[in-house]
Amino acid sequence: SNSFNSKNHPHRRYNPLLDEWVLVSPQRAKRPWQGQEEKPLTSIQNQYDPKCYLCPGNSRANETQNPHYEGVYVFDNDFGALLKEEVTTDKADDEADELFKMKPERGINRVICFSHDHSLTLPEMSVEAITKVVSVWKEEYQSLGKLDYINYVQIFENKGAVMGCSNPHPHGQIWAQASIPSQVVRTQQNLKSYYDKHGTTLLYDYLQKEIESKERIILENKGFVALVPFWATWPYETMIISKIPLNSLSDFSHEDQALFAQILKDLTTKYDNIFSISFPYSAGIHQAPTDLESHEEWHFHMHFYPPLLRSASVKKFMVGYEMLAEAQRDITPEQSAEILKKSSTIHYKNK
Amino acid sequence: SNSFNSKNHPHRRYNPLLDEWVLVSPQRAKRPWQGQEEKPLTSIQNQYDPKCYLCPGNSRANETQNPHYEGVYVFDNDFGALLKEEVTTDKADDEADELFKMKPERGINRVICFSHDHSLTLPEMSVEAITKVVSVWKEEYQSLGKLDYINYVQIFENKGAVMGCSNPHPHGQIWAQASIPSQVVRTQQNLKSYYDKHGTTLLYDYLQKEIESKERIILENKGFVALVPFWATWPYETMIISKIPLNSLSDFSHEDQALFAQILKDLTTKYDNIFSISFPYSAGIHQAPTDLESHEEWHFHMHFYPPLLRSASVKKFMVGYEMLAEAQRDITPEQSAEILKKSSTIHYKNK
Ligand SMILES: O=P(O)(O)O[C@H]1O[C@H](CO)[C@@H](O)[C@H](O)[C@H]1O
Ligand SMILES: O=P(O)(O)O[C@H]1O[C@H](CO)[C@@H](O)[C@H](O)[C@H]1O
Repeated sequence: SNSFNSKNHPHRRYNPLLDEWVLVSPQRAKRPWQGQEEKPLTSIQNQYDPKCYLCPGNSRANETQNPHYEGVYVFDNDFGALLKEEVTTDKADDEADELFKMKPERGINRVICFSHDHSLTLPEMSVEAITKVVSVWKEEYQSLGKLDYINYVQIFENKGAVMGCSNPHPHGQIWAQASIPSQVVRTQQNLKSYYDKHGTTLLYDYLQKEIESKERIILENKGFVALVPFWATWPYETMIISKIPLNSLSDFSHEDQALFAQILKDLTTKYDNIFSISFPYSAGIHQAPTDLESHEEWHFHMHFYPPLLRSASVKKFMVGYEMLAEAQRDITPEQSAEILKKSSTIHYKNK
Repeated sequence: SNSFNSKNHPHRRYNPLLDEWVLVSPQRAKRPWQGQEEKPLTSIQNQYDPKCYLCPGNSRANETQNPHYEGVYVFDNDFGALLKEEVTTDKADDEADELFKMKPERGINRVICFSHDHSLTLPEMSVEAITKVVSVWKEEYQSLGKLDYINYVQIFENKGAVMGCSNPHPHGQIWAQASIPSQVVRTQQNLKSYYDKHGTTLLYDYLQKEIESKERIILENKGFVALVPFWATWPYETMIISKIPLNSLSDFSHEDQALFAQILKDLTTKYDNIFSISFPYSAGIHQAPTDLESHEEWHFHMHFYPPLLRSASVKKFMVGYEMLAEAQRDITPEQSAEILKKSSTIHYKNK
C-alpha cells in the first residue's frame, strides 16, 4: 500500500478553533464541472448612483435621507434582524422544556458604508481611507459594547451577489447583541481551554509555527500576518491574525490601525488578482465579547471565506455532504497559499 | 416594554441535536430584496438525454458505459472525494502537534440513480419506484457498513443547480468512510447524553410533544412523521422521523420501506407545489454509524434543507453573520409549517 502524501491522498485536518474536522480531497480537483455558473461582479463605473440607497444624499427606506457624507458613514439598518426594544417574558429560562428552548434576543444592527464613492471596493481604496474604516470599527465596537445589554459585537462584510450582498456600494455590517452567538461560544471554549493549559493564546502559538514554516504565510507586516490556515475550509480561505495577542479592536493603537488597513488592502488586492475580478467573500472579525469578563484567551483575528473555486464563475458548493456531515475541500490549503503568494499586491485595474 | 411574542419579536431557539442556537427574526421578512436571483429548475422534457452521463447505455468518464438499466442503478463515483486504497502513515496520531492534526481518510463514494427516466424527480415517481430507492439505500447502508474499514455511511441528495447539483437526472449520493464526520459526532453526543439521562431517545420524546401540539406536523402515516423542527434553520427545513426509534435503515421492515417512500413522495410534492417548480434542496439521512458499537441513542431521521425563501428565484443566503456567528432565519418555523400544511399532495403538474 502507498505511503501517505497530503498532496495526493484524501485526508482530514483538525480545526482547533471549532473543534471539528475538514475533509481534504486533493485528487478531486480534476473532476469536470457541468453545474451552475455565477455571474462575476462587473466593475462599477459610476462614483454616484441615484438609485443606490447607500449613496450620499439619497433616500432610504422609511423616507430617511442619507447625509451628504464623505468617507465612512454608519447608520442603523432599516430592516435589522434584531430590535433594540426590550421585551419581557414570563417563562423563566430554566422552566422551559429542554427540547423547546426559546429566548427573546435584543440587539442593534448597523450598516457601515466604507466610502461615499459607489464605484470603490476595499482593495481600491487608499490605506488612509481603509484606516478610517478600521477606526470606525473600533469606535463602534467600543460604543456598542459599552451598552449594558450588548455582550457581543459581530463586524462583517458580505461582498458580491454570490454572497447575498444586494448592493455593490462598498459597505459592511455590525450586529451587536445580548447573547454570544453559537460559533463564538464554541471558539471561545476552545481558546479558553488552550489558554488554561498553556498560558499562551492558541493563535499566538499557532502563528509562531506558521511564521517558522512560511508555507502558508501570504502577507506579513509589523503588526499582522495573513495566512491560509492549516484547516482552511473554503478554497481561498484566509485569516489575518495580530502578531501579539490583542484581545480586540480596543487594544489597537493608531499604528495598529494603519498596519491592519495595509494588510487588508494587500490581501483583498491579491484576491481580486487571482481571476482579475472583484473577488466575492464573507469576512468578519472574531474578538473578545463585551460582557465585561476578562478574556485573556481571545486573540484578535479576521476570517475571509471566499466561495470561488475554479474560476471567476465556478464556486465551491457547501451542500449535501457538507451540510449533513463535514466540511470538504478540493485543493489543499498549501496549493491555495501558493496561488495567493504569487498573486500581486498591485491591483489588476492599475496595471 | 412589550411582552414577548414569537411571531413578532427576534428570538433564539435551541437545536438540541447540534447543541447550538438559531436566531429567528420574524419582522425581517418585510425587507425588500434587490440581490441575486436564481434560475428556477425548468421542467425536463426528455426521458432520455444522449449527453447525460447518468442515462442508461451512455458512457461516463474513463470510458465506462452505463448498463441499459431499468429503475435504480448504483455505481462508484468516477471523481470521488474519498479513495478505497489504504495508505500508510508514519506519524502516530498522538505524536502530531495539537495545532496541526492531519489523518489520511479512506472511503467509498457511490452514485445512485433513482430512475432510468431522465425527466423524473422523486415526487413524480410512483410510491413503488421510490420504495425501490429506499430498499437500495438499505442494501448499500448494510453492504458498505459491513466492510471493516467503513464506520459511517452518509446517504444524501443534492437537488437543483442552486444546490451544486450538476445533472438533473434523478440521483443521490452515498459517501461511506472510516471516520464519523464532525456533525454526526456532535449529533451522536447530544443523542447519547439525552438517552443516558432519560432512557428514551431524544427524538422519540420530541415527537410525542410535536404530535400532541400538531402545530409543526406536516404529514403523518403509520411509520413516519414529517415536521418542521422547532429549531429549523432553513426557510422550509423539515425532518422525517420514524415513529418508533429505529436505529437505522437496517431496522426497516418491508412495510416501513413503503411507508417511508409514501411520506417522501408527499413531502417532496408539497415542496414542488409551494412555488410550482421543482423545489431545490439538500436532503440526507442521519442514522447509527456502522462501527459495531451499540447505538440505542440513535433514532432514524432524514433532514431536508431547501434554500428558497421568498419565491422560486430568491433564496436565503447563509453568509456573513451566519458563517461567523450563528444561523439566522426570517420567517418562523410555524409560518413555514402553515404553508407546507396547506400545500397539496397532488403534484402541480398533474392538476
Ligand atoms: O459530487 P457532486 O454532485 O459533483 O458535487 C456536489 O456535491 C458534493 C457533496 O455534497 C459537494 O462536495 C460539491 O461541492 C457539490 O458540487
Ligand atoms: O443584510 P443583507 O445584506 O440584506 O443580507 C445578507 O446578509 C445577512 C447577514 O449575513 C444574511 O442574513 C442575509 O441572508 C444576506 O442576504
